[in-house]
Amino acid sequence: MTTDAAAPARPEARNPRGFADRRGRDLIAERRLVQRVSEVYERWGFEPLETGAFEYADALGKFLPDADRPNEGVFALQDDDDQWMALRYDLTAPLARFAAQGWETLPKPFRRYAFGPVWRNEKPGPGRFREFVQCDADTVGSDRPEADAEIIAMACEGLRAAGLDAGQAVVRVSNRKLFDGLFQAGGIEDAGQRLTALRAIDKFDRLGWEGVAALLGEGRLDDSGDYTRGARLPAGVIATIEGFLSSVADEGLTRAGTLDAVARVGGLGEIGEAALTELAAIDAALNAMKVSQDAVRFDPTIVRGLEYYTGAVFEAELLLDTVDDKGRAVRFGSIGGGGRYDDLVARFTGERLPATGFSFGVSRLASALRAAGRGDEDAVRGPVVVIVFSDADMQHYLDAVSELRNAGVAAELYLGRAGMKAQMKYADRRGAPAAVILGGDEIAAGQVTVKDLDAGRALAAGVSDNEAWKSERPGQQIVPRSELVATVARIVKQARTAS
Amino acid sequence: MTTDAAAPARPEARNPRGFADRRGRDLIAERRLVQRVSEVYERWGFEPLETGAFEYADALGKFLPDADRPNEGVFALQDDDDQWMALRYDLTAPLARFAAQGWETLPKPFRRYAFGPVWRNEKPGPGRFREFVQCDADTVGSDRPEADAEIIAMACEGLRAAGLDAGQAVVRVSNRKLFDGLFQAGGIEDAGQRLTALRAIDKFDRLGWEGVAALLGEGRLDDSGDYTRGARLPAGVIATIEGFLSSVADEGLTRAGTLDAVARVGGLGEIGEAALTELAAIDAALNAMKVSQDAVRFDPTIVRGLEYYTGAVFEAELLLDTVDDKGRAVRFGSIGGGGRYDDLVARFTGERLPATGFSFGVSRLASALRAAGRGDEDAVRGPVVVIVFSDADMQHYLDAVSELRNAGVAAELYLGRAGMKAQMKYADRRGAPAAVILGGDEIAAGQVTVKDLDAGRALAAGVSDNEAWKSERPGQQIVPRSELVATVARIVKQARTAS
Repeated sequence: MTTDAAAPARPEARNPRGFADRRGRDLIAERRLVQRVSEVYERWGFEPLETGAFEYADALGKFLPDADRPNEGVFALQDDDDQWMALRYDLTAPLARFAAQGWETLPKPFRRYAFGPVWRNEKPGPGRFREFVQCDADTVGSDRPEADAEIIAMACEGLRAAGLDAGQAVVRVSNRKLFDGLFQAGGIEDAGQRLTALRAIDKFDRLGWEGVAALLGEGRLDDSGDYTRGARLPAGVIATIEGFLSSVADEGLTRAGTLDAVARVGGLGEIGEAALTELAAIDAALNAMKVSQDAVRFDPTIVRGLEYYTGAVFEAELLLDTVDDKGRAVRFGSIGGGGRYDDLVARFTGERLPATGFSFGVSRLASALRAAGRGDEDAVRGPVVVIVFSDADMQHYLDAVSELRNAGVAAELYLGRAGMKAQMKYADRRGAPAAVILGGDEIAAGQVTVKDLDAGRALAAGVSDNEAWKSERPGQQIVPRSELVATVARIVKQARTAS
Repeated sequence: MTTDAAAPARPEARNPRGFADRRGRDLIAERRLVQRVSEVYERWGFEPLETGAFEYADALGKFLPDADRPNEGVFALQDDDDQWMALRYDLTAPLARFAAQGWETLPKPFRRYAFGPVWRNEKPGPGRFREFVQCDADTVGSDRPEADAEIIAMACEGLRAAGLDAGQAVVRVSNRKLFDGLFQAGGIEDAGQRLTALRAIDKFDRLGWEGVAALLGEGRLDDSGDYTRGARLPAGVIATIEGFLSSVADEGLTRAGTLDAVARVGGLGEIGEAALTELAAIDAALNAMKVSQDAVRFDPTIVRGLEYYTGAVFEAELLLDTVDDKGRAVRFGSIGGGGRYDDLVARFTGERLPATGFSFGVSRLASALRAAGRGDEDAVRGPVVVIVFSDADMQHYLDAVSELRNAGVAAELYLGRAGMKAQMKYADRRGAPAAVILGGDEIAAGQVTVKDLDAGRALAAGVSDNEAWKSERPGQQIVPRSELVATVARIVKQARTAS
């Protein structure tokens, strides 16, 4: 075979737009996160499910979150039998298809968790990818408020397992039916008007009451001069919403206290009252599961942008002040969310099937943890590198590598053909905690030189005179060959503890 | 919101053709397999890499294994900037793109492992999917035979970690240049003729020498009456190949013995002799790593169907006699393979970059392990189920579930609305080792009933009289409430040991 160096055009090696490669420490950190959350979810009785990357486009439906347009934003292609298939844009739509397909044979209620890539055919940008990993947990077939409470409590424990301490995250909970009831009591029947109003309320956090009031009324002119048409609700309904939102501004309220405050405002109608009863049952279950008032709060300003939620809605928020690479403060805000959606399976079967779930973006949570200084990527070290001098001594190098691996120490033989200096640089770039040097002299003397690379770096940093550094050989020790494994293991353990 | 029950057409809930859902025990078994192999690969110094699902079609190239046709067999679509993208069909092509793209900044040699789905747009059939999970390990940038030996030895240790004992699998190794040399020495320059000849030799295992000889010569009429045109090699070259293959029929030969036998046949030319030297160096490294003669054999009939291999080639074969679901004997044959490919990165850069790797199909290996009775899916049990009687006692049920989870026992509360009998059936279908019963009487007496479901099944099987079974309540015990966790933990531990 010959290379195609003479071929007219060589392809350029590049990622497709919006697709990224992930490797090494970041990837290991993300996998650990998923592993830890999975252990929690399995302990809570949720079984793993993996569906295929493709769904038929009609089965996928138009429930793309954050987009109201049907079948936009997905990667679709036509199969050779002319049926349109599309890559999943989330893990909920495939679950709905799976549950509808196999409902007769599934244990009911059906609890499952899932993680894996989802794809969105959107304009890529900095930090905005067209493929990313989500992690979901859902219970299908239970209308009990305890099912919502379980998902919420499990989400809290999952975030804890991922590395967030108590007080570093809060799950805010509300119920979409609070507003359904309020709209019905206020005579607002138009679905578009309701959606516009919910979107306005969703911005309470950012715009405050004045901005929201404008968007509930005629419309709002923002600072940039853009005009957003409002929901045009009657003044009476807007006043009720005002009382409603202001009643819950007190962050010191318990969950039960918030429910009392909302109830006192009134004007919720029959549906809204039912929503309060559901929230009270969720509160009782959360209390029974000893979920603290700080970990889960009730907050009626949480509406979630999605059209498909039908009851309780949840949003997990990072409370930590985080900094970016340049040390600037970053507000992470939402790191996950979910809620009750009782209509998704009905698309297939025509029959309502109660369902509730929680979802988070894996990379986003990993970034949040990293930014919060809670990532443990630093603890992920490269393998110990055994330096190669002479092909004739290969047996000695391979023996050393094998012994280290058999002792559970990640180790590798340098397999390039560069000299000592380049090999030390290689070990450094691999994040190796130690390098093992078996020169001819060492072998003849039954010894081995072990270089503690962290100690070497630390010592080198404290020594200004370059000649002194060279002569001192910081972090380097010569030990009997039989003490190789013990010596390296000690260094690796220190490296792990230190970082 | 209303359901779309009245909508004209509801989509049918179905998987796209050739795409499967995987869940529960099988999925857990596959993940454990990948986890165990990953631990080995990381201990050997291979770092994880995940590339995106899509590659640009030109970057993906026409190296689809087992298909000589360019750009066929992939799922491709045109991006909105008119560039064609395709889902990866293996993990090697994306690695070549990644290595070419970032070569300057990577530690060299670059070792990486990867696992994830790959997609092939082929006709689906029973057991033949269009999406499946592969697991690969490759070293890019080392021309050393020790790099091949390392991949081979690591593949052996990976298979061992996955659950195959010594003697249950063998990695057969050869070198494509043996035949390159033989062809060159025999004056066979035509690439098509060479490929046809290699394909014939690849069938030695199945057809024996007579069939292969026909395919190396004019052609072969098989039992079904189909005629396959042969490579039409000169008789002298065919005779050399015969001596070559027959010299290695002795399964008792060591790796060094096989090399000697091949060398004695002669006619290998300069390139073939170089191949023998490479294999001898691989043997030396395997011996240094204490890889037994049974675990890795040299076998010149191994050619691998792929066009892109340029040196050493490996094939991992399951040696176990396995049975299928119906108890019929199954020959699994190849469960993975790989080799040296020095031209893949050159597609992008014009410069040869040495590379070597090993790949296996995760589901296929899991099936092999299952068929060989080595799968441990049976050890994967469902959660303990806490039965629900009355909403008023919810606090008691939730307490029990929390206590069990906090003790590390997977547990769940039944969250449907069915009665006791249906709940016990549910627990059974979930594979629960135990059910926890907290009726009003138990709660009042400060007690709890724990049902050992395995013991219950076993006892029930031995009791013919249904009335007796009911009265004896097999496997059921009433203990003080304070002993719940200890009692359940004991049952769960027994269930794990027994299965």
